[in-house]
Amino acid sequence: MPIPPSLNTPRRLLMGPGPSEVPDSVLRALAQPTLGHLDPAFVEVMNQVQGMLRTVWGTRNDATFALSATGSSGMEACLTNLLEPGDRALIGVNGVFGSRMVEVAERAGAEVTRVDQTWGKPLDPSAFRLAAKGRRHKVVAMVHAETSTGVRNDLGPIRAVANEYGALFVADCVTSLGGMPVDLDASGVDAAYSASQKCLSAPSGTAPISLSERALAVMAKRTTPIRSWYLDLNLLRNYWGGERKYHHTAPSNLFYALHEALRLSLEEGLSNRYKRHQRNGLALCAGLTAMGLQLPVATNVRLPQLTLVAVPEGVDASAVLADLRDIYGIEIGGGLGPFAGKAWRIGLMGGASQRAHVIRLLAALHSTLLRHGYSPPDHGVAAAEGVYDA
Amino acid sequence: MPIPPSLNTPRRLLMGPGPSEVPDSVLRALAQPTLGHLDPAFVEVMNQVQGMLRTVWGTRNDATFALSATGSSGMEACLTNLLEPGDRALIGVNGVFGSRMVEVAERAGAEVTRVDQTWGKPLDPSAFRLAAKGRRHKVVAMVHAETSTGVRNDLGPIRAVANEYGALFVADCVTSLGGMPVDLDASGVDAAYSASQKCLSAPSGTAPISLSERALAVMAKRTTPIRSWYLDLNLLRNYWGGERKYHHTAPSNLFYALHEALRLSLEEGLSNRYKRHQRNGLALCAGLTAMGLQLPVATNVRLPQLTLVAVPEGVDASAVLADLRDIYGIEIGGGLGPFAGKAWRIGLMGGASQRAHVIRLLAALHSTLLRHGYSPPDHGVAAAEGVYDA
Repeated sequence: MPIPPSLNTPRRLLMGPGPSEVPDSVLRALAQPTLGHLDPAFVEVMNQVQGMLRTVWGTRNDATFALSATGSSGMEACLTNLLEPGDRALIGVNGVFGSRMVEVAERAGAEVTRVDQTWGKPLDPSAFRLAAKGRRHKVVAMVHAETSTGVRNDLGPIRAVANEYGALFVADCVTSLGGMPVDLDASGVDAAYSASQKCLSAPSGTAPISLSERALAVMAKRTTPIRSWYLDLNLLRNYWGGERKYHHTAPSNLFYALHEALRLSLEEGLSNRYKRHQRNGLALCAGLTAMGLQLPVATNVRLPQLTLVAVPEGVDASAVLADLRDIYGIEIGGGLGPFAGKAWRIGLMGGASQRAHVIRLLAALHSTLLRHGYSPPDHGVAAAEGVYDA
Repeated sequence: MPIPPSLNTPRRLLMGPGPSEVPDSVLRALAQPTLGHLDPAFVEVMNQVQGMLRTVWGTRNDATFALSATGSSGMEACLTNLLEPGDRALIGVNGVFGSRMVEVAERAGAEVTRVDQTWGKPLDPSAFRLAAKGRRHKVVAMVHAETSTGVRNDLGPIRAVANEYGALFVADCVTSLGGMPVDLDASGVDAAYSASQKCLSAPSGTAPISLSERALAVMAKRTTPIRSWYLDLNLLRNYWGGERKYHHTAPSNLFYALHEALRLSLEEGLSNRYKRHQRNGLALCAGLTAMGLQLPVATNVRLPQLTLVAVPEGVDASAVLADLRDIYGIEIGGGLGPFAGKAWRIGLMGGASQRAHVIRLLAALHSTLLRHGYSPPDHGVAAAEGVYDA
């Protein structure tokens, strides 16, 4: 193979299900000189990341840090550390990431009871109770913001179920953290994980995670070894604090980027950030609706940071994706599971959640749909602008 | 906590056990615009990374790619995918990373036989035979370049042992890949892993890995599920090739950096690169020896990219590390295990393996030792220059 030339990657506007737009200052932070993982200057970076993560998570949990791998490793870390072979877990499934939780928990040796819900609808606490059959469970788990459908599953009602069955409550906050309130302590979440490349808008490659004292106490009572060494949260806690015992070589540059992304979130202010996501989500939906497009997820459970849009009859879903990318430089996502080929997913996460981007997307989508056999009754832009000007 | 200011990380010359000096063009590649993991432009980056990795590994293995986590995840991936509960593994241990292999294999459920050797000495094939007791083993594993001691364990003799016991041969090439010949196919290695931040000189966070057809055939006969979902090599193979089925969100920016680091390795030429490492290693050792310092590892098994240096009697090892870092801006590493507090580790890996850096380090070390109670009989620099001028 001839040696390829240096990369010159195209600039896309990232409005898919993640990764999201990375702010320039985050890319600049990423490229700062690499430090060794034991350098006091890097230990200080870790400390600051940890402190800022506690604020963004809304927790005082000591065991709050970031894994040196992508969001899915956070899922595996939580489930593999908390579950032992034979333990019972009750897991809500209304999308790809709920299903993945089931698979990961089963690989950890747990006896899993699935609580299925139609994709595109929110999890139903009464279905959890029915499935639990009155038995104690070690873990009740759910996805807060289902990236595969754009549905919000509320934490409170499922937390209540976990209490009834004496279970730890595990929440996938991959697409919620930084884009909507999570408030781990107030929500009573025992173990949560997220990803750097969604509403925090850092590059992919690190997974924020947080565990309550209650979760740590359950881990301390394990009778079998944690199956993963790389994701052993006891070893990782000791690396991020305490003795700072060497575990692995932290990806220092990724942590610089996460540091800057967290800084930007806190400088904006979390409540401002949530309001921004909310408003841009509303504007986008107003525009899409004005174009006559159907949004399969009900308004009251729709995520502001991820919108599922039905593909109009007769339109080739993937041709639209390709045109948006190749002509307009915009990435949006395709549908998954029952929505494969039947819906698009538009992400307004972190850096992507901007008025300018919403308007740019609506205009590009309008032109693209026209070319692909669907004539929107309206341009959509005015309806979106109406939300901003209200 | 007040919001910390943007980072302004100090520039260190990274001459420790890794991470190593990252070339400027690699940092620039790292900061290129983020692409989505499904973007055709990013798929092309993955293809090119894969092709270049095959060249650097010296393999035609189809299953050659990089994990989205650090080098230790490569160890876990190889052992967890190949070993099932009850399988027998024979593992050489003459340093931290051999010990870690034992722990990871045990967590995978394997019955492990350790083949210990004094740290600082190379593994002994006859000790493997003695420990094997004539029984078949599923895996024979070893560390090619022990980062904790600077010892080279040759692949050939242990490969021969693996053949005798019908075992797959697994090699940790974390500190060898890109700095010395590995040649997987010629060496008969069935599964190997490495790390981006050693002799390849990319930032930490990705782990090159390669599996032979024989290893894949053994994986295909598993009767129990692979315990890790994140590191399931079947899923990852399908993500890097074949159907390109979605698995996780690849850390695209890290792969840009790995791409550039591989490019630089191939542009230099692998044999030139190995010679460079060899010559700088010799020059460093000549300088250290001229300073009257003892090098505990025998010349014939000493790694050119990592040199263990005994701390002279009465010198405070960590005070010297701190001075080198804080006054001269140079990071070197401390000793581990039996060498803790008794040795330093000097890395000349990838971007760090340069004549200018060797001379800078020798001069800084000389001054530092003088201040800390040891008077070198010679300055060391002339001896090193002698190697370059020979």
